Amino acid sequence: MKKVYGCVVSRDDHYVRIEGGKFNAEEFENYPERYISIFSHKVAQYSSCIINGIYWAPNSPRLLTIPDAKTLLKAQAFPWLPSSMGCPQLPHRLISLCDISADPGGSIEFMKDCTTIDKPFCLYDAELNQETESFKGDGVLICSIDNMPAQMPREATEYFGSLLLPYIPEILKSDAVSSFEDYDANPTVRNAVIASNGELTPNFQYISEMRKKSTSAHKASIQPGQKRVLVLGAGYVAGPAVEYLSRDKDVQVTVASMMKEELDHIEGRCPNADMVMLDVGRRPDELERLVPDYDIVVSLLPYSMHPDIAKMCIKHKKNMVTASYVSPAMRELHQAALDANVTIVNEVGVDPGIDHMLAMQCFDEVKHAGGKISSYVSYCGGLPAPENSNTPLRYKFSWYPKGVLMNCLSGAKYLKDGKPLEFMPGFNLEGFPNRDSTIYTDEYGIRDAHTCIRGTIRYKGFSNVARGLLDLGLLSDVEQPELHPNGPEKTWRQYFCRKFGKSSDLLEDTLKDLMFEAVGENEQRLDAIIRMGLLQDELIDKRGTPIDTLSYYLSKRLAFGPEERDMILMQHDIGVQWFDGSSERRWVSLVVYGDNEPNGYSAMAKTVGLPTGIATKMVLSGEIQKKGMLIPLTSDIYQPILQRLKKEGIVSMESI
Amino acid sequence: MKKVYGCVVSRDDHYVRIEGGKFNAEEFENYPERYISIFSHKVAQYSSCIINGIYWAPNSPRLLTIPDAKTLLKAQAFPWLPSSMGCPQLPHRLISLCDISADPGGSIEFMKDCTTIDKPFCLYDAELNQETESFKGDGVLICSIDNMPAQMPREATEYFGSLLLPYIPEILKSDAVSSFEDYDANPTVRNAVIASNGELTPNFQYISEMRKKSTSAHKASIQPGQKRVLVLGAGYVAGPAVEYLSRDKDVQVTVASMMKEELDHIEGRCPNADMVMLDVGRRPDELERLVPDYDIVVSLLPYSMHPDIAKMCIKHKKNMVTASYVSPAMRELHQAALDANVTIVNEVGVDPGIDHMLAMQCFDEVKHAGGKISSYVSYCGGLPAPENSNTPLRYKFSWYPKGVLMNCLSGAKYLKDGKPLEFMPGFNLEGFPNRDSTIYTDEYGIRDAHTCIRGTIRYKGFSNVARGLLDLGLLSDVEQPELHPNGPEKTWRQYFCRKFGKSSDLLEDTLKDLMFEAVGENEQRLDAIIRMGLLQDELIDKRGTPIDTLSYYLSKRLAFGPEERDMILMQHDIGVQWFDGSSERRWVSLVVYGDNEPNGYSAMAKTVGLPTGIATKMVLSGEIQKKGMLIPLTSDIYQPILQRLKKEGIVSMESI
Repeated sequence: MKKVYGCVVSRDDHYVRIEGGKFNAEEFENYPERYISIFSHKVAQYSSCIINGIYWAPNSPRLLTIPDAKTLLKAQAFPWLPSSMGCPQLPHRLISLCDISADPGGSIEFMKDCTTIDKPFCLYDAELNQETESFKGDGVLICSIDNMPAQMPREATEYFGSLLLPYIPEILKSDAVSSFEDYDANPTVRNAVIASNGELTPNFQYISEMRKKSTSAHKASIQPGQKRVLVLGAGYVAGPAVEYLSRDKDVQVTVASMMKEELDHIEGRCPNADMVMLDVGRRPDELERLVPDYDIVVSLLPYSMHPDIAKMCIKHKKNMVTASYVSPAMRELHQAALDANVTIVNEVGVDPGIDHMLAMQCFDEVKHAGGKISSYVSYCGGLPAPENSNTPLRYKFSWYPKGVLMNCLSGAKYLKDGKPLEFMPGFNLEGFPNRDSTIYTDEYGIRDAHTCIRGTIRYKGFSNVARGLLDLGLLSDVEQPELHPNGPEKTWRQYFCRKFGKSSDLLEDTLKDLMFEAVGENEQRLDAIIRMGLLQDELIDKRGTPIDTLSYYLSKRLAFGPEERDMILMQHDIGVQWFDGSSERRWVSLVVYGDNEPNGYSAMAKTVGLPTGIATKMVLSGEIQKKGMLIPLTSDIYQPILQRLKKEGIVSMESI
Repeated sequence: MKKVYGCVVSRDDHYVRIEGGKFNAEEFENYPERYISIFSHKVAQYSSCIINGIYWAPNSPRLLTIPDAKTLLKAQAFPWLPSSMGCPQLPHRLISLCDISADPGGSIEFMKDCTTIDKPFCLYDAELNQETESFKGDGVLICSIDNMPAQMPREATEYFGSLLLPYIPEILKSDAVSSFEDYDANPTVRNAVIASNGELTPNFQYISEMRKKSTSAHKASIQPGQKRVLVLGAGYVAGPAVEYLSRDKDVQVTVASMMKEELDHIEGRCPNADMVMLDVGRRPDELERLVPDYDIVVSLLPYSMHPDIAKMCIKHKKNMVTASYVSPAMRELHQAALDANVTIVNEVGVDPGIDHMLAMQCFDEVKHAGGKISSYVSYCGGLPAPENSNTPLRYKFSWYPKGVLMNCLSGAKYLKDGKPLEFMPGFNLEGFPNRDSTIYTDEYGIRDAHTCIRGTIRYKGFSNVARGLLDLGLLSDVEQPELHPNGPEKTWRQYFCRKFGKSSDLLEDTLKDLMFEAVGENEQRLDAIIRMGLLQDELIDKRGTPIDTLSYYLSKRLAFGPEERDMILMQHDIGVQWFDGSSERRWVSLVVYGDNEPNGYSAMAKTVGLPTGIATKMVLSGEIQKKGMLIPLTSDIYQPILQRLKKEGIVSMESI
C-alpha cells in the first residue's frame, strides 16, 4: 500500500487546528500569512488528501490559491520510490480535497462551485483551471457539499418550538400594514423583527451597508462577474486574441485602434466585442480615460509604445499583457509594477513566446530527470506555405517588410552562408543565426550549454537574393536625394541606369549585364531582381531611404494573395548530458499553417494572438498572480498555455 | 440590342409545333427521336429563350436532358461578336426557359420542381444540377407554374352548375354506409360514383392497376425516390466517397468488404450507410445476389477485379464507377456496356482522375480561344506532408508499399537522374517520368504537342535511396530460398552478412563498409539503410521475394503516425502556341493536405474518394447519361466534378 498523507484544517472561536496541532485563533487572524505559509510549505505539498473546515472572510488570505494548485497538482515522477500493484503512481501528490467550509473561491480559491448530494464530486484540472464532472484525466477530486452537516433532530425541533411558543400570541398581534413604530409588542419579539413595511427595522439597517460592501468584494475577488479587457491595436494578430477572450461570456473585450477597417474586420468575427476608434500614440489622454474602467490592458502595438502604456497601467493598478520582448525600458518598470501589485506578462507570442515555452518544457523535463542541457540550437521563421513559395525572394510579406529586411542587414555577416536546414527534408530550408543568440542562456538556466544558437528560417535562396539586394545598396537606411518623395518621378530602370552611371536609354541586355556584375555575377540574384520588376519602367514610390522605398514596393509586390497562406516553422535541437555520462539529442518542432478559408487567420496571427489571449485570460482568472514583469519561463505559466494551444490546434512534435 | 432567338414547342392532338413549323403528331409519337434531334441540334442550341408546351408521357424521350443542359449553359465566348453597352455578353446562350407543360423531370428533365405564382422563377445551375431561388451566379431562369392557365369564368360555373343541378336529389339519396350494390340511383349518377365504402367501384377498379404502374414508372424515371449505391471495398478512400454520397437523404449506401475493422470505421463516420461483410474475390455468387438490388456499383477494389464486377453490372444492367485506369480487359467491355445501356465511369480518382480533369480544363480553354497545346509536362505525387518527411526514404506509406517500389523498378532507368522540381521552391522535390508518358496525347487531343511527359513527384533523395535498394537486389521480385516464409529465422543483419559472403559475427563497422561499397559508395544511401534498420538484428518477416519482404517491412516501419498527415502535389506545365505565333506557358497546380484532426481523412483518401463519390452521384441523378466505358475528359463531366471538389476544399491554382 502506498502511504497516504492526510491533513485536516479546522477552526473554532479560539483555535485554528492544522493537522492535529492547534494555534491561537486570534494570532491566526492577526498573522494569517504565517500559518498559511506553514500550511502550504509544510503540509499541503506532502498531503494526498486535504479536508478544509476553516472559516474564511473575503479579505483573508487563502489557504490554497489557483497558482498553488498548479504546483500541487503538477505531474511528478519519483522513480526512486517503489510503486506497488493496484496502486499505480499517480501523476501528482494531491489526490482529493474535501472543502467542508464550502466557500466558493474562498480559502480554497480553486473550489469554484459547491458540489451537491446528488453529484458529490468534481474533478479540478489545474492546468485548464476547470472543473469537470467527468473523472477522466489529471486533476484533484473535490467534495464541497454546501448543506447542513446533519438533519435537524426531533429533540431540537421540540426544544426550539417550546422556546418559541410563548411569543406566538405577541407575534399574532402584529399588523403588517401599520407602521413599525406603532407595533406594541414584548421587546423580545419587537427586537427580533428584521424588516417591516418593506424596510429594514432600525436594529438591522446595518445589513444594507454590509451587503453593499460584500457584493463589491464578491465581484472583485470571489465570484467574478464580467471582467473587462482593453485590447490596444486591431492588426491581424488581434483577431485570434479577441476571439479567444470573447468566447467567454464573463469577459467583455474592447478593441481600440485608429484603423477603422481593421476594427470592422474584427467586429465581423467577434460581434460581442466593442470597438473604439483611438490613436493611442497621439491621444494618450483618451487612453488614460479608458484604462481605469478595465481589469487588464493587452497591448498589440509596436514594442516602443509599451513603456508608456505600462506606466499608465501601473498608475491605475491594472494588469497588462504584451507579446513583445521585454525591452530595457520595460525592464526598468519591474519594481514599480511590483510595488503597485501589478502583473505585466510579456513575450507570450510565438517568437518570443511559444519558443520559450517549448524550450523550457524540454529543459525542465530533462532537469527533473537529472540531466543537463549541453547545447541548444533553435530556428524559427514565418514563411509562405511551400505551395505559395514561388517568389523571387522565396518569401511573402504579411506585414511591413522593413523588419524582415533589417533582420538581413543585422545578420548580414551570415547572409553569405545561410546554411541548409534539413530537420524536415521535405521543406527546402536555410537558416541564419540571429544577433542575440546567447542572451537567453541565463534566463533559460542553461549556463552549462556549450552551444546556444537562435536563428531565422527562410527558404533556400533567400539569403543569396538578400545579399544581392544588400550589394546593390537597397538595404541602406541612409536618405538618398534621388529617392526623396518630392524629387522628380523615376522608374526602377532609370534608378539603376543612373546608379550604374549610364543614360536611361540603355539597352535592356546591357542593363542586365551591368546588374549581373553588380550582384556578384550570381544568376539567381539577377533572376530575382528581374522577377521583382526592378529593371522595369515602373514608377518608384520614393520613401527617402533605399530600404524604406524597397520595403514599400515589396509590401505590395510580394503580398499574400487571398487564397495563399503562411506558415510558422520552429525547431529546437537540444543536446542532453545525463549523469551517467551518456548524451542524447531531443528535437521539439512546431509547424502551423495559416487557415485555408478565405477569411481564416494566418499562422502568424494564430501563434501570436492565441497565446496572448490565453495568458490574458489566465491573469483575469487568477491563474497568474505573480507581480512585476513576467515572461513565460515557469511551468505554472507555460504548461497551461501550451495545453490550451493544443486544443486550438497548435501542437508541437517531439522526437528523441 | 443583342439579338434574342426564341423557340416555342407545343402539341395538340394532331400536330407538334416547333418554332412555328408543325409536324404530324402521330409521326412524332412513333419517331420522337427524330424530332428531338431536330430540336436539340437545330433549335435549342441557338435559342436564348425556350417555351415548352409539349405533352410528355413517362416513357417518351425528353426534349432536353440534364446533360443537354450542361452543353446549352456552358460558358461560351464569342469575341468576334460585338457586345453592346447595357447588354453584356452572358456566359451562355440559353437565358430562360418557360415550361408550360409543368412536368417535373419530364420533357425538360432538369425542371425538377414546378414554380408557383408567389415565386414564379428559379435559377437552374447545370454544373451543380441544382435549382436556387437566388438569381446570383450562372444558370438558366426557369418558369414552370403548375396552375390552370386562367381563372374559371363565371359563365362556366353557371353552365356547369345548371348541368349538375338535376342530379342533386338523386345524389342526396345515397347512404354512404350501405353497400354500393344497394345504391338505387339514376345510372348517370351511379356510373359517376368512383369509390364507395372505402373501395373503388367496379367501373373504376382499373385505377388501382394504373396507379401501381405509374408509381413505379414515376419512381424510376420521373421523381426518383431513394437510389441505392453498392460500394465495394472499405479501404481508406471509401470514407470520403461514402460520406459524400450518404449526405443526400435520397441515396442509400451499402458498403461491402471483408475487413470488419474498416467497415466499423466507416460506419462510425457514416451512420446512415449499411455495412455488409463480403469477400468479393472468393464469393462472387454473394456479390451477384446483391447487385440487382442496387442502382449503381462503385468498385474501390484492386483494378484487376474490375472486369468481373463490370460483367456482372452489364448482365444486370447496372451502372458502375471505378477510380482506376481503364485496363485492356475493361476496354474490351465497352461495346457490351453500350449494348446493355450501361454507364461505366472510370479514372475519377486523383491520378488518374483530377489530373485528367485539370489538364483538359486548360486544354479546352486554350482550344476555345484558338490556341494549340505545344507541350505538356505533368508531375503528381502522394507524399508525407513536409513536416513529416524526415524518414530515410523521405517517404511514408499510406498503403502497401509494393506499388510505390514497383514504380521505382519500372522507372529504374530514370532513378539515377531524379531531377529537381522547382515549381514550388519551398518544397524540396524531385521528379522522375512514368513509363506511360505518351499514351494520353490521343485521348487528350494534343497530338501537336512536341513534349508530353507525365511523372512522379518525390522528395529529393528518394530516387537516390531507391537506387541503393535496387542495387542491393531488394526490389527484385524473384523468389529467394533464404526469404522463404518457412525457412529458418534470420535477421536483416544476418541476411546481408550472408549476401556479402561473410559470417554473422562480422564487426558492425566492417558490415557498414561492405554496405557502403555495395550501394555505390553513396553516403545518403548508407545512412538511409542504417536508419531503416537493415543492419540491425531485427527478425525478418520473410515473404518469399525481396520486394515483398521489404514492402511488408516498410509498411510497418515507414507508416504514418496518428498525428502525421500526407499530401497530394500535382503540377501541369502546359505550353501554348497561339495563332499569331506567340507562345505562352500555363501552370495548373494542386496541393491538398491531409486533415489535421486525429480521425481526419488523408489527402489521398479525399482526392480519390470525393471525385469518385461525385461522379457516382452524377450518374445517379442523370447528369451523366452517356453509355459505355467513360473517362472524365469532356467538360460536361469534368467541369461539375471540379466545381464540386472546390466546395469540398480541393482547389487548384492556375498561373500564366
